[in-house]
Amino acid sequence: MTHDITDRSPRDGRFPVDPWLIREVGLDQSFLPQSESLFALSNGHVGLRGNLDEGDPSGLPGTYLNSFYETRPLPYAEAGYGYPESGQTVLNVTNGKLIRLLVDDEPLDLRYGTIESHERTLDMKRGVLERELVWCSPSGTHVRLHTSRLVSLRRRSLVAIRYRVTAVDKRVRVVMQSELVANEHVPAQSKDPRVAAVVEHALKAVEKGGKHARALLVHRTEGSRLQMAALMDHVVHSPDGNITELAVEDDWARYTFSTALEPDDELDVTKFVSYGWSSQRSVPALRDQVTAAMVSALHAGWDGVKREQEDEFAKFWDGADVRIDGDDELQQAVRFGIFHSFQAGARAEQRAIPAKGLTGPGYDGHAFWDTEMFVLPLLTATDPDAAADALRWRAATLQQARERAGTLHLSGATFPWRTIRGHECSAYWPAGTAAFHVNADVAAAVLRYLRWTGDENFEREVALPVLVETARLWRSLGYHGEDGCFHIDGVTGPDEYSAVSHDNVYTNLLAAQNLTGAADVVARWHDQAQELGVTEDETAEWRRAADTVAIPYSERHGVHEQSRGFTALDVWDFAASDRDHAYPLLLNDSYFDLYRKQVVKQADLALALHWAGDRFTAEEKARDFAYYEPLTVRDSSLSACTQAVVAAEVGHLELATAYLAEAALMDLHDLNKNGGDGLHIASLAGGWLAVVAGFGGMRDHGDRLTFRPQLPPGWHGLDFTVRYRGHHLRVAIGPDSVTYRVEGDPDDGGSVPVTHLSGDAADGGAGEDLDVAVGSSVERSWTAVTPLTETPGQPAGRVPARAQSRSANRSAD
Amino acid sequence: MTHDITDRSPRDGRFPVDPWLIREVGLDQSFLPQSESLFALSNGHVGLRGNLDEGDPSGLPGTYLNSFYETRPLPYAEAGYGYPESGQTVLNVTNGKLIRLLVDDEPLDLRYGTIESHERTLDMKRGVLERELVWCSPSGTHVRLHTSRLVSLRRRSLVAIRYRVTAVDKRVRVVMQSELVANEHVPAQSKDPRVAAVVEHALKAVEKGGKHARALLVHRTEGSRLQMAALMDHVVHSPDGNITELAVEDDWARYTFSTALEPDDELDVTKFVSYGWSSQRSVPALRDQVTAAMVSALHAGWDGVKREQEDEFAKFWDGADVRIDGDDELQQAVRFGIFHSFQAGARAEQRAIPAKGLTGPGYDGHAFWDTEMFVLPLLTATDPDAAADALRWRAATLQQARERAGTLHLSGATFPWRTIRGHECSAYWPAGTAAFHVNADVAAAVLRYLRWTGDENFEREVALPVLVETARLWRSLGYHGEDGCFHIDGVTGPDEYSAVSHDNVYTNLLAAQNLTGAADVVARWHDQAQELGVTEDETAEWRRAADTVAIPYSERHGVHEQSRGFTALDVWDFAASDRDHAYPLLLNDSYFDLYRKQVVKQADLALALHWAGDRFTAEEKARDFAYYEPLTVRDSSLSACTQAVVAAEVGHLELATAYLAEAALMDLHDLNKNGGDGLHIASLAGGWLAVVAGFGGMRDHGDRLTFRPQLPPGWHGLDFTVRYRGHHLRVAIGPDSVTYRVEGDPDDGGSVPVTHLSGDAADGGAGEDLDVAVGSSVERSWTAVTPLTETPGQPAGRVPARAQSRSANRSAD
Repeated sequence: MTHDITDRSPRDGRFPVDPWLIREVGLDQSFLPQSESLFALSNGHVGLRGNLDEGDPSGLPGTYLNSFYETRPLPYAEAGYGYPESGQTVLNVTNGKLIRLLVDDEPLDLRYGTIESHERTLDMKRGVLERELVWCSPSGTHVRLHTSRLVSLRRRSLVAIRYRVTAVDKRVRVVMQSELVANEHVPAQSKDPRVAAVVEHALKAVEKGGKHARALLVHRTEGSRLQMAALMDHVVHSPDGNITELAVEDDWARYTFSTALEPDDELDVTKFVSYGWSSQRSVPALRDQVTAAMVSALHAGWDGVKREQEDEFAKFWDGADVRIDGDDELQQAVRFGIFHSFQAGARAEQRAIPAKGLTGPGYDGHAFWDTEMFVLPLLTATDPDAAADALRWRAATLQQARERAGTLHLSGATFPWRTIRGHECSAYWPAGTAAFHVNADVAAAVLRYLRWTGDENFEREVALPVLVETARLWRSLGYHGEDGCFHIDGVTGPDEYSAVSHDNVYTNLLAAQNLTGAADVVARWHDQAQELGVTEDETAEWRRAADTVAIPYSERHGVHEQSRGFTALDVWDFAASDRDHAYPLLLNDSYFDLYRKQVVKQADLALALHWAGDRFTAEEKARDFAYYEPLTVRDSSLSACTQAVVAAEVGHLELATAYLAEAALMDLHDLNKNGGDGLHIASLAGGWLAVVAGFGGMRDHGDRLTFRPQLPPGWHGLDFTVRYRGHHLRVAIGPDSVTYRVEGDPDDGGSVPVTHLSGDAADGGAGEDLDVAVGSSVERSWTAVTPLTETPGQPAGRVPARAQSRSANRSAD
Repeated sequence: MTHDITDRSPRDGRFPVDPWLIREVGLDQSFLPQSESLFALSNGHVGLRGNLDEGDPSGLPGTYLNSFYETRPLPYAEAGYGYPESGQTVLNVTNGKLIRLLVDDEPLDLRYGTIESHERTLDMKRGVLERELVWCSPSGTHVRLHTSRLVSLRRRSLVAIRYRVTAVDKRVRVVMQSELVANEHVPAQSKDPRVAAVVEHALKAVEKGGKHARALLVHRTEGSRLQMAALMDHVVHSPDGNITELAVEDDWARYTFSTALEPDDELDVTKFVSYGWSSQRSVPALRDQVTAAMVSALHAGWDGVKREQEDEFAKFWDGADVRIDGDDELQQAVRFGIFHSFQAGARAEQRAIPAKGLTGPGYDGHAFWDTEMFVLPLLTATDPDAAADALRWRAATLQQARERAGTLHLSGATFPWRTIRGHECSAYWPAGTAAFHVNADVAAAVLRYLRWTGDENFEREVALPVLVETARLWRSLGYHGEDGCFHIDGVTGPDEYSAVSHDNVYTNLLAAQNLTGAADVVARWHDQAQELGVTEDETAEWRRAADTVAIPYSERHGVHEQSRGFTALDVWDFAASDRDHAYPLLLNDSYFDLYRKQVVKQADLALALHWAGDRFTAEEKARDFAYYEPLTVRDSSLSACTQAVVAAEVGHLELATAYLAEAALMDLHDLNKNGGDGLHIASLAGGWLAVVAGFGGMRDHGDRLTFRPQLPPGWHGLDFTVRYRGHHLRVAIGPDSVTYRVEGDPDDGGSVPVTHLSGDAADGGAGEDLDVAVGSSVERSWTAVTPLTETPGQPAGRVPARAQSRSANRSAD
């Protein structure tokens, strides 16, 4: 008898509101792919999807090692010059989290028997996933299972699992089978281009071995020539009387432990799995590496490893937490976003931070500009070492980026639109190669990191070459037109529904920042710059380009043009799309039609208003925001957070809250219906941005941190901490006032340069400069920004869920 | 011993100049792919590449049945909405032209032994390919071979071969093996996207049979579900004493004839092959069809069939010939172009005319807009029934075009960019789906045919639905902007280096012709139009769109913009492309870079100046032509002919001659280095256009034929005939005067409405209306157009060959 498991957890409000826990009561099998993503654990190096311990049923089995991928040919029915020939796809590596259980003669499988209770809890404060379950087998035997799982932050290669079985009402024979499994069957993905290509049987067995409770599997890939080792070992406590067995084959290893439990007896298993991979090191080296990690883990034991994890998380949250007083659902969601952003980057250590982190195979496991413009703002302000490492990864791919620029007959370097190891893997150039803004995004992240840390080693070793090569790119990509302006034509900005356009404002302004920033850094590292062949004429050219960069403006509409000529285009028929249930448009409309009309997939000009906000007046921001809002369909998960930031800045606080909710709840509510492929890390990080840059009004355009605090209706307080040049700055916003506090011992000296802006100091108001000394606080009052326009509406059918329910509530009032 | 066969035929001037013959003396094995294309025979239904009778050596074996294709999946590494999933590829069908010969014990293979003489001659006047050869076998035996081959114009399904062997100096045993071979091995094509995909073993055996000298093979395709039959039979005359054998297998059939020849004895074989194919008819029906054709051919015999061929060609040339006095090379080349255009369309009979005709597998055997805008102008004026049939083919695909429009959420119908059976087969939308002008091109061809024939049945049955559905397309594709103009955004005009642009002048003006033409035809067929649901409001909308269509103009440069904003773009660095040997640019530069700069692949605005010439003043034409010439790299074979036409109109007659030469010699000189895939039929037809519309100045904008005769330097006369509304109009241009003559008996009545323009009557000059009566002539004087600008130059490295050699001659003087 099989039965579908759907109980007690409605699709909306699936997870009870709790400040630190994501708790799932019951189990909805149809939601498994999504819950596996939500309950994924990762330290940025190893990632486990939240698959059930026993493997079956599963939505999508997933175990990932950062940057462990296979190559695959990219097919083109009509190829063109410069098209990448080879793609990279993240692999589902050897699964070490699998533990099966035989209860009397019945395999524990939740599709059979009866689930008496089932609860999974992600503890975001401690970085542990807990599971409790009472199951009654088809033959009527009850067992209680309690498992804990963590991916160690302290120990990069380590997965630790505590697995406890208790007999409930009568004696039961149990057989635990703990496994390593390579080349698991992964279900075929949909035809949706965003879904990863599956590489079948990508792992070739190289070596295997085992003794007692320990087993090793070593595999390699054929195309990418990478090797990986997975090692498991076990510490078992059980009543007397047991027998064990170890079997090791090419693609699997199984440790079997058979015993019998009287009621309340417990079988208590700690399983450690250590992973290692390399493109360089030999099999013996890999074998030794995973064994060393294992011995050290066994030495620490489960309790030791778990305590380390709690310490690491406590340290992180201390400089990263956000507290919202007045909206518990968003409190939970924002912490969820911070948690997963941290998991994605914490120990990536000069590997890419993919768009899905290590939570699923979506987008082939590729990293995009998401990292630099959405995840790194958060990490720079909360875990700057992780941010530095992510940027060192980019810098490590500079050679591939130089080669790509050469292929395209451009100077300098151009970073790939999507990649794992630095090679361009985008097979559709209008939304790939043409999106040159990725280079300005990398430069922006580099410059941001420098502003926040003042890290001179990084500036010399990483920032200088990256900024120089990207500046060279921009100089060769653009040209001075007959109007004297510096134009960058034929590029795709953030809005992927307006590809291959001219003078995209966001691209142009961030390119200008890139060019100026490069010239500034060159001036500080003259000798090193000379080694890169930089001349004074060259930096003068960069500055001239930056100073004259074109910023298209429509006099007729009194707004900036997202790109040249944009406001003259026909406006998309949103009513028809709403009527035809055609969102997201990319699945129902052709590129040709999207590109030629005023329809915006995702924040584009709004991104410029945020990240180059010093180039716009308050009135321009208000008018621009109001113009683009009704055109922006948010078919990308990268949109809502930026709209929240700008909505807050121009004074539409309820709208800002609705967008914050969309960004932060993207995955908890599975808003885009594709959470099964992995989480939308950028949107989750964007939740933090929406709070801190939105309601906190935090900007870092110059060498001071600027804040313009506000609270939306219903919020009584907002409190967040950022790390700035070695200090923890805590910003606590109350109903009328804000307190800036720098933690620490006043005797250590130092201060954080803060500029406080109040709503009424709108544009001309330069704000009040406060140098907040270590160990001290400064309190200031704030007032909300007075909106200069009506609250703009969204395209038909695209009102954000929160705003919708608010307005429904209102009409019900 | 093998040796390379290269003698007596240098790469340039390979074929001796001759007014009616293409004669190859010797055999250059490295040029075989190209010569097989040049010597291809076709009637539009069956096509044979000019493969050697004995099959080996070959460049690319090829036998084609119009529209006999296989489907194949179109792969996309990143798919998008509306991308076609399935492509169509023309098949190399059962080869019936194969005749091998064993000379004593030695197979006749030109790579062995000694070629004493070898000559192939394409007789364009009669439509027959002749071959004469004396070969000395490795063992020293001489034989003379004389073969003739034709694809019958009168008998659609029939291939006829005369094969004669003579012993030269001693008695020789000969064995002739005449074959049908299905699924021949075809060499892999290059990675060049323009080269056809090869479908291996596409023919599945269905039935076979044979008796005496006759054999039948029936095959089907798996994906496209088509069936074909090939039947061969033989009439043999030989000295006494022979033995024959027939073998028939699934994929081949072989008739063997063994005899001995004394010196001067002749083995004389006539081989007939008849082909039939269908997606509907049964195997017995196909078998009967090819057998009936065979019996009829046997009844006529070789002499009868050949006489029919000569009659058909004589009839065609009588109303189609062009005579050039003063340039024998171009005389030959222009006739070559007319010959192959006629071969491509003569008996296509409601099948597509592919871009390569039936001369090779290039472009997968697809038809493009080439047909309507380059080949049909020639056929409309020389073989109007063939033109009508080609357009009936388009009309027969209206349902697929409606469905495609539906997929794209557009009204009406949109014809595919490339296809065999009417489905869109373009896998790259910026140069496929976006090239909506194909619809206006179809409409232009329909309207042109109506003007030239007044065919009312066609107007009602074909023109009305095609024009209505394409007008609906334009109305839904474009919009009235805030400026009141009708804009068509995001389309690709003829210039494929400026894809996805707004308000392409050519597209807009031809769309306007389409809209107006549709409204006019609807007014004439009111009842039938009502059946199509056309309302008065709808036609009023069409006229309003046509009347207000946007025609972008740059005041700064005083020229029209190929598309909106074009003249503001950066100009391509042609010097660098020349230095880097980067032409054709599409093989060395990326689309992103080409699209965003002023670089024109092929005549685009020039096409508008030609085909919508009534919308421009003479000064505009002169200025526009001068502006775009230095930007136009002619990386498409569709370019030079139009540039020739406009160069002549604006008075640059030497340049016009150079472009005419490029168009007409495209394949004879293998200018694009890809003639092995098949001929460039549009360029060849364009040679005719360059002469008739260029130097003849022929235009058909209204209900009169307009001529503005001119002769370039060195020409003493130009004489051409066109068929207009049932009459043969002969235009004979002498050094100072032109004679318009309508052939026929004056008693039959009727006249041709001609308008004569002389050069000095440039723009305002409305010209002199002459109604040339049947059987009469009118003579007028002409003067050359005075150029309003200097002769424009071409991009660096792209001076046309003729102009180059002229200028070299000059400097040598």
